[in-house]
Formats: sequence, C-alpha cells, structure tokens
Amino acid sequence: MIISDSKALGYEGDTFFFIDQTKLPFEEVTVRSNDYERISSAIERLEIRGAPAIGCAAAYALALSYQSGSEEVFLTAYDRLRRTRPTAVNLFHGLDAIYTVFRNGGGFGDCLAEAREYHQKDILSCRSISIYGAELLAGKKRPVTICNTGAFAVGGEGTALGVIKRVHSINPLELVTACETRPLLQGARLTAFELDKAGLPFRLIADSAAAFFMSRGEIDFAIAGADRIAANGDTANKIGTLMLAQLCNIYSIPFYIAAPVSTIDFTIGSGSEIPVEFRSGSELNSVRGVQITSEKYPAVNPAFDVTPSHLISGIITDNGLFTHPYSFTK
Amino acid sequence: MIISDSKALGYEGDTFFFIDQTKLPFEEVTVRSNDYERISSAIERLEIRGAPAIGCAAAYALALSYQSGSEEVFLTAYDRLRRTRPTAVNLFHGLDAIYTVFRNGGGFGDCLAEAREYHQKDILSCRSISIYGAELLAGKKRPVTICNTGAFAVGGEGTALGVIKRVHSINPLELVTACETRPLLQGARLTAFELDKAGLPFRLIADSAAAFFMSRGEIDFAIAGADRIAANGDTANKIGTLMLAQLCNIYSIPFYIAAPVSTIDFTIGSGSEIPVEFRSGSELNSVRGVQITSEKYPAVNPAFDVTPSHLISGIITDNGLFTHPYSFTK
Repeated sequence: MIISDSKALGYEGDTFFFIDQTKLPFEEVTVRSNDYERISSAIERLEIRGAPAIGCAAAYALALSYQSGSEEVFLTAYDRLRRTRPTAVNLFHGLDAIYTVFRNGGGFGDCLAEAREYHQKDILSCRSISIYGAELLAGKKRPVTICNTGAFAVGGEGTALGVIKRVHSINPLELVTACETRPLLQGARLTAFELDKAGLPFRLIADSAAAFFMSRGEIDFAIAGADRIAANGDTANKIGTLMLAQLCNIYSIPFYIAAPVSTIDFTIGSGSEIPVEFRSGSELNSVRGVQITSEKYPAVNPAFDVTPSHLISGIITDNGLFTHPYSFTK
Repeated sequence: MIISDSKALGYEGDTFFFIDQTKLPFEEVTVRSNDYERISSAIERLEIRGAPAIGCAAAYALALSYQSGSEEVFLTAYDRLRRTRPTAVNLFHGLDAIYTVFRNGGGFGDCLAEAREYHQKDILSCRSISIYGAELLAGKKRPVTICNTGAFAVGGEGTALGVIKRVHSINPLELVTACETRPLLQGARLTAFELDKAGLPFRLIADSAAAFFMSRGEIDFAIAGADRIAANGDTANKIGTLMLAQLCNIYSIPFYIAAPVSTIDFTIGSGSEIPVEFRSGSELNSVRGVQITSEKYPAVNPAFDVTPSHLISGIITDNGLFTHPYSFTK
C-alpha cells in the first residue's frame, strides 16, 4: 500500500511535507514547507484534499505559524486557514485543537506536539474505521466508490477506500468500480493510483454510468467518505454522492458512509445547514490546463452535495457502526 | 440559430459535406467528401453523431458508393456502413431506404434522390417534434438536458434541443441546464455552442451534479433524445440519461424523450433487446489528446443506457405526443 512507503502528508526532520495531489498520477511530487501561507494555498488549490487530511494539514500549518513566537502571526494564520475551504468540518477541528493549546498559554513546541498528536489520532481512527467496515462488509465483492478517500484524503490509510482495502485483504474483491469524479477527477487520478499500487482489481467509469452498472446488477454496495455529517446523519460529500445514494436506494444496493466521528458536526441539526462550496467554473471548462470547451461558457460547479440520512444504510466510524435513524450527540 | 447559416451536414454542388463535431467549439471545420469509407469513419469517430444525423449521413454515403455503378462496391459499402455504430436504429433506416431503391433496380441518381428525400424528411420531422414539444412545454422555464440533440445531431434543427429552442422562442426560458456529458462532452462542447449562438441563457454542470440542482428545486423538466426506442417505450440514449430519468422520478420532475418515429424499433419488445455499444476506455482516460489519468488504468465505457418506459412522462415524436403505457406498432 502507498501509505507504507510514502505518506501523503506528515512532519519529518523539522519540516512539514505533503504530496501534491494535483500532479498525480503523472508525477509524485513531495512539497516541503513550514510556511502556513504555502500550506493554506495548498488546501485551497487541492494539492492537499480530503476532509481528514485538510484537518491534519491545517493543524500543522497553524502550529508552524507560531515558530517565531508571534501571537499576531499566529492569529493571522488562524484566520487565513479558516477561510481555505468552508465545507469540511475537520478543518475547524484541526485548527481548534491548536488554538486551544495556544489560548492555554502553550508555546510553539506544545502546538507542534498537539498537531502531531492530532495527526496520530487520525491514523488510528482510520484503522478503526477500516476494521469496523471490514467486519460489516467482508465477503461482499463489488463495491462502487466516488472521489478519493484513501491515503491521500486522510492522515492514515483512508476512510471509505481504507475499508475497501481491508475488505479485500480479508476476502479478495472481484471488482472495485471507481467513479472518475468530475470535475477534478479524484477517482480517475487518485483512487485509481492507489488501487493500482495496492493491486486491487478495478475499473474506472464516468460518474453518469453508475446507474447503468447498478441496473445490470454489477454493484453489491456503495461506500463514500464525508466532508461533514449533521447530527441527524445528513452527509455532505463530493458532488455526485447524492446521485449514488439515490440510485442505490432505487436498485436496493446498500449505501455506506465511512468517516471519523470528528467529521460529525454536532452543532447542526440537519444537512440544510451545511454550507456548500461553489468552486470556479473553469474547473469544468478545462482539465490539466487544457480547455475542453470554451472558457466563455458559464459553468456552475458545486463541490459537494448533501445526502439525506434516510438514504444511508450505515455510517461506519472509528466508534463503530451507526444506522438510521441517526441521532449524534457529543 | 446555427442551422440557418450553417447546416451540420448535407449535399451541395455534387458533394456531401459535414461539420467535424470533434473539433467544436474550438474550430468549425467543414469536411467535403463523397467517399463512403471517409463518411463511415466519420460516423465511427463521432465527427458525425446523433442518431438522426447518422441515418442521413449513412444514406448519403451508401448512395454515393454507387456513383461508379458497381454493385460490388455498393454491397461492400452497405456492409461497412452497417458496422459503424450498433445502437442507433436510424443508421439501419437510412441504409435500408437506399438499399430498397437499389434492390428495385434504381441507379445512382435514384439512390442519391432517395438520400436527399430521406434528409428532407428528417428536417420536417424535427420541425414537427419541436412544434408538438412546444405545445406541451411552453411556459416552463428551467429544463435540463444531456448530450447534444440539436442541429448537429440531426438533419434539421434538433430533437430535444429543437424543442428547447422553440419553447424559448414562444416564452423565454430562464435557464437551460446542460449536462456536460462525459466522456465526450457533447453537452459542454456542442449543446453549449448551439445555446450560446442562439442566445439562450444556460449553464454547464457536471453530470453528477444533476441531483444537486434537482434537490434544490432548480429544474422544471428534463428532455433528452433517443438512439433507439423499443415498442414498449424503453429508450436507449446517451449514458447518463437513465440517471436523469431516475432522479426526475424521485424529485417529481417530468422527464421527456424527443425523437422522430423513425427512432422506434418496432421489432423489439423491450429495452433489454437493445445492444449497447461499449467504446474505448481511452475516451475516459484522455480528453482532446491529453491524458487526464494514466492510460494503463482500465476504464469501462458504455456509450448508452436504457431508460425503462415507466420513467418517461412522454415521448414527443413527429407524430405527436405519446404517454405511458407505450405500445408502438407500425
């Protein structure tokens, strides 16, 4: 697995590093930087992406902003990082963990230790998710997934893709169907990269072809990650997840979310309160710097959608499996 | 409208011509050729696409193959053209129209006259479809559509997009939502090109975002074309159409098919008998010659899916509107 020889992000030899996900699968470029502004823009530009990974990167970035000991720089960094991506709740968790240490009088060393601790917890929570997921799903053969929820999306092994990999290690899967995940192709680029490296049998499909394969009985279950989960179980995730969940419901295919408890936002009652990020239409009109249609055509590009909880067969967390009706409390 | 100053295909000054749709919207390249092999490969390579347009092009190509008067060449051309694309029934109609003239002893001139007649009928049938469609839908404001079903898909003004344009001319539309239509982006390239030229308000979206916009109440109706319709109304169309139809059903949005009666295949009882064309996985892994993910990742690329007739609110044809339950007979 990729994680064993090459982590997607971390802190090593006094430096924060991350693999630039926008360049995969063509190049594996590792960026090293302790500059919170560089890490902020990496989050904005999706060089680092995936809700749990964003939380880890933001925690490191905020801790590192305190290296000079300037409270002003720290607070500027805190504000800057909070504005990078609005949907993933983990961003705020990662930042708040460091902010709490700062507010309680901790210095740079304490903040950095907290960031490493936060990252370590993420690795462990992924492990728990995959263990609970495999308990539930081992023996099933043909999952479908969307976006990338593997080692690039988190601090550890992955959420939904971590489950898929562990299920496979127990009882080999027949075929993983990966939605390419327009517009930024996290499925075609990142999930395919991980599945290929891990030696799992897989195929890429156009997102719009999911209904076709479900209608033919070629899918046993769907599993996706989450960017934010409301107290009632409504789940914001990559655009296209709602489509998958609705189709699973129609074709009687179980649909699961895999995410750490840290993704649950106990402060919001339902999905209607989750802010959905709209990204630039240019992400639709061009791919890898090449125009695929005229740049002047208006494109509307919501990055996420919200799946109502009644469509979710189960939410697999690091605290175990939850099923509908969901009622998450602290 | 594009059609008034630039037809997508036709016969002018002793030469067959077509606009190479693979180059749009970047370049408007008109290809002139009377070589049936060139026209066959244009159909295969989607330089000419859209079920009715394929029928017209095939009719011209077969007629032109008889220019030398060689029956052997004619029969070779007939076989060759039949193998270009298996799903669109119009291909076989166009070919059979010319073949019938040939079998009855007609010469090159008779075959060519029949091809022109076939094309003329297509233009008229489009007009009828748009009139019936506008009668049904005028006043509705926010359609969604998939693929391209306008002047590039047919001999005339279009099927589903023809309806949209006529509805707009009667009572201006608020916003047309065009699915980009992966993998070959007929929506982002061709439908956007036509809507832009015709001055309609529109937006492009990722196919997977259709559920998001429907769930927000931003879509009033869906309308799509057809590559083949079974006697019971089951309809094969561009991959992603089944997804749209299922989602419309869930969100109580009417879903229409617009297609000439010639698209109905009376010989097959239901959609399960419609052969679905699988195209190369490279169409997913690269766009406009640029790799968007590794070429070695396996991609499965069905070009069509089949929508069960019970999901179709109405089929708008050149013979008027049909509604469920459908029972088409000659």
